[in-house]
Amino acid sequence: MTRELLTPTYTYARSEEAFSRAVKVIPGGVPGHLGPSEGVFIPRSDFPLFSQRAEGTRFWDLDGNEFIDYMCGYGPNVLGYGDRRVAAAAEAQAKLEDVVSVPSSVMVDLAELLVDTVASADWAFFAKNGGDTTTLAVMAARAATGRRRIIFIEGYYHGVAPWTQKLDYPGVLDTDVQGNIEVPWNDIEAMSRVFSEHRGEIAALIAQPYRHGNFFDNELPAPGYWQAVRKLCDEHGVVLICDDVRAGWRLDLAGSDHFYGFEADLICFCKAIANGYNVSALCGKESLRDAVSSITYTGSYWMSAVPFAAAIANITTLKEIDAPRLFRELGTSLTEGLVDLARSHDYTLVASGEPALFYLRLADDDSLMLHQRWIAECVKRGAFLSSHHNHFINAALTPADIARTLEIADEAFGALRMPAAGA
Amino acid sequence: MTRELLTPTYTYARSEEAFSRAVKVIPGGVPGHLGPSEGVFIPRSDFPLFSQRAEGTRFWDLDGNEFIDYMCGYGPNVLGYGDRRVAAAAEAQAKLEDVVSVPSSVMVDLAELLVDTVASADWAFFAKNGGDTTTLAVMAARAATGRRRIIFIEGYYHGVAPWTQKLDYPGVLDTDVQGNIEVPWNDIEAMSRVFSEHRGEIAALIAQPYRHGNFFDNELPAPGYWQAVRKLCDEHGVVLICDDVRAGWRLDLAGSDHFYGFEADLICFCKAIANGYNVSALCGKESLRDAVSSITYTGSYWMSAVPFAAAIANITTLKEIDAPRLFRELGTSLTEGLVDLARSHDYTLVASGEPALFYLRLADDDSLMLHQRWIAECVKRGAFLSSHHNHFINAALTPADIARTLEIADEAFGALRMPAAGA
Repeated sequence: MTRELLTPTYTYARSEEAFSRAVKVIPGGVPGHLGPSEGVFIPRSDFPLFSQRAEGTRFWDLDGNEFIDYMCGYGPNVLGYGDRRVAAAAEAQAKLEDVVSVPSSVMVDLAELLVDTVASADWAFFAKNGGDTTTLAVMAARAATGRRRIIFIEGYYHGVAPWTQKLDYPGVLDTDVQGNIEVPWNDIEAMSRVFSEHRGEIAALIAQPYRHGNFFDNELPAPGYWQAVRKLCDEHGVVLICDDVRAGWRLDLAGSDHFYGFEADLICFCKAIANGYNVSALCGKESLRDAVSSITYTGSYWMSAVPFAAAIANITTLKEIDAPRLFRELGTSLTEGLVDLARSHDYTLVASGEPALFYLRLADDDSLMLHQRWIAECVKRGAFLSSHHNHFINAALTPADIARTLEIADEAFGALRMPAAGA
Repeated sequence: MTRELLTPTYTYARSEEAFSRAVKVIPGGVPGHLGPSEGVFIPRSDFPLFSQRAEGTRFWDLDGNEFIDYMCGYGPNVLGYGDRRVAAAAEAQAKLEDVVSVPSSVMVDLAELLVDTVASADWAFFAKNGGDTTTLAVMAARAATGRRRIIFIEGYYHGVAPWTQKLDYPGVLDTDVQGNIEVPWNDIEAMSRVFSEHRGEIAALIAQPYRHGNFFDNELPAPGYWQAVRKLCDEHGVVLICDDVRAGWRLDLAGSDHFYGFEADLICFCKAIANGYNVSALCGKESLRDAVSSITYTGSYWMSAVPFAAAIANITTLKEIDAPRLFRELGTSLTEGLVDLARSHDYTLVASGEPALFYLRLADDDSLMLHQRWIAECVKRGAFLSSHHNHFINAALTPADIARTLEIADEAFGALRMPAAGA
């Protein structure tokens, strides 16, 4: 079924102009997912590179192109860009103070809210990056156990500190990663074997609540998997760290461990904790409180009050609107619509992971090139999707936005039937 | 000379009440310099623990006590708390966008401003913590040289990542720090010896521009020291990293390496770069651009636009008012006044380091207990000083504030003659 193209596709002259300035003064031009070091992705020329305004579920790029944004700043946008409830709390706090030599007591208010909200939290420690919390978690586990090895799930991502990287990555030493052990996801036999082989050596297991890595279908935990892992950790005295930096606040406000029916010893939050205001938190069980406070761990701006106030407003609002239910409904509606639409075009679209953080893959081409072309056709028509990363739902997304996204996706499928431009 | 006590000393009932809540929900209660794990400092009971408002050079604690603040949020407050020029730029940017899926081009504007302003900057890479930049610098040096060892100056502080810590610190592994070599400050013979002994093994030397550690008099570079170090680094192919996180933007807007007449290969900025808005930057020479862009390095919120806009307004204002000259004059006036005042009380006060970041020590008691008591007496009267850390000058500080500080310090010296309360 070939359809007439209704939407003119976007061009990016001003983004390209800014990028030509950027490459002169920033290594790689734009760091992160659209940087040139990640040459495996669809041509950068199909994507906007710089934004100028954002509101609700949308942003506008430098050329004035409008996008329904399913990346949400790679997670932080959870209530909608510029949400007034969070912004008002932040502005009120900014009028009083932000970074001061002694912290605002709003830090304590937020810690109390986290302890009240998060099932596995007896305390909270605040920092700035998600990676600050994963590193503190691993150090605390080593301090508490006197052991050194860390177990990871294959395909893991826990930030960019050297211990989170791989031996063949630039700047990483063998000693940075030599205690790391990778175990396949959802394989309790393999996990049990590793626990036995390294009895008395394992400080911690760090894992995201489900497997939501890049470039592959995301995988939920098998029934009973987390409960079996929890039991193994208890038997072997291993600290169980839930890296909830990405999924946190979208599946369950009590923590994604709670969502899957287990309790982590330590849980890492960032991204969606304050609707984009800059704060992260490690929460955990009483048994690890002393280990955490024994560690030398602080940083510039770490006790800034504005993000604490924003986080309180954000979490309070997420509770009021029962955000996880909303995200599940919106994500399900969108992904079911996309899968049906693909089928009507004789394509097989696989939507994986939790609906609130859905991952997409056109399964008709193992090279992912067809998938990348389809995503590019969507982006050029105003649906900002990713060809290799999970997406994010925010609370400002409406059924009308989803309907518009499906229209765009429909045209994008149609465009796949046409010869590639310039080919 | 005993003087009548003119200023009633502060009490902290509401701070104590908030702290009793904090210890339940935050490991250690208040992380950082006033936490209980740092038991070497003057009794916490003499310090305010929580603030409620800040403006210009002052903050007010939870009990309403007013402080002239010489810690400046441990550095970020450089123009004055809530400075309107920076806040207006941040507010205008916040109305447009902050954390979005693709960055604002204000990121490029800031990178261009840094390249124009900082002598050793051919490019800039943005992150969130000072420690993000020191870690990236070390990883880039290892990637560029293919070597592993890092040289540090004795008493160093470069953040809290495991590689920056010491073997006996909780949570740190031997493998985290085994490539580290410490060299005494200002000892070019020792540095030269280490370079020869480890020829071909040294990736980088990381150092602050002068020695401004805690618990000891700060020490400026000896004449010719940095030039000799630069020469050694060139001869041995060692990357010279200037950790300007603390001193940056107070000594010289072109970088503290420029201030001391040399050029670093990489320079780390944070703290005072945006008057408290949350951003850090690694800048460096063309020769290291590719190494930096080869490294997997990103984080949540790293491309948030509000701190970029704030940094531009902050740096522009620092230039307009010739802030380093102002900080030098204010710092010199204050420290000379304090030293003279101490002499009039028959004490010997040593003010060390650069005036913009002065360090104080009463030299009449090697145990530092007398010094700690004097600082406490100052704090309890409204001059927020540190007993163990360098201080910071900000541009909102006035000669009248300095005069008031000297009055407070005078009374504090008088109080040292009285029996300690409760003793």
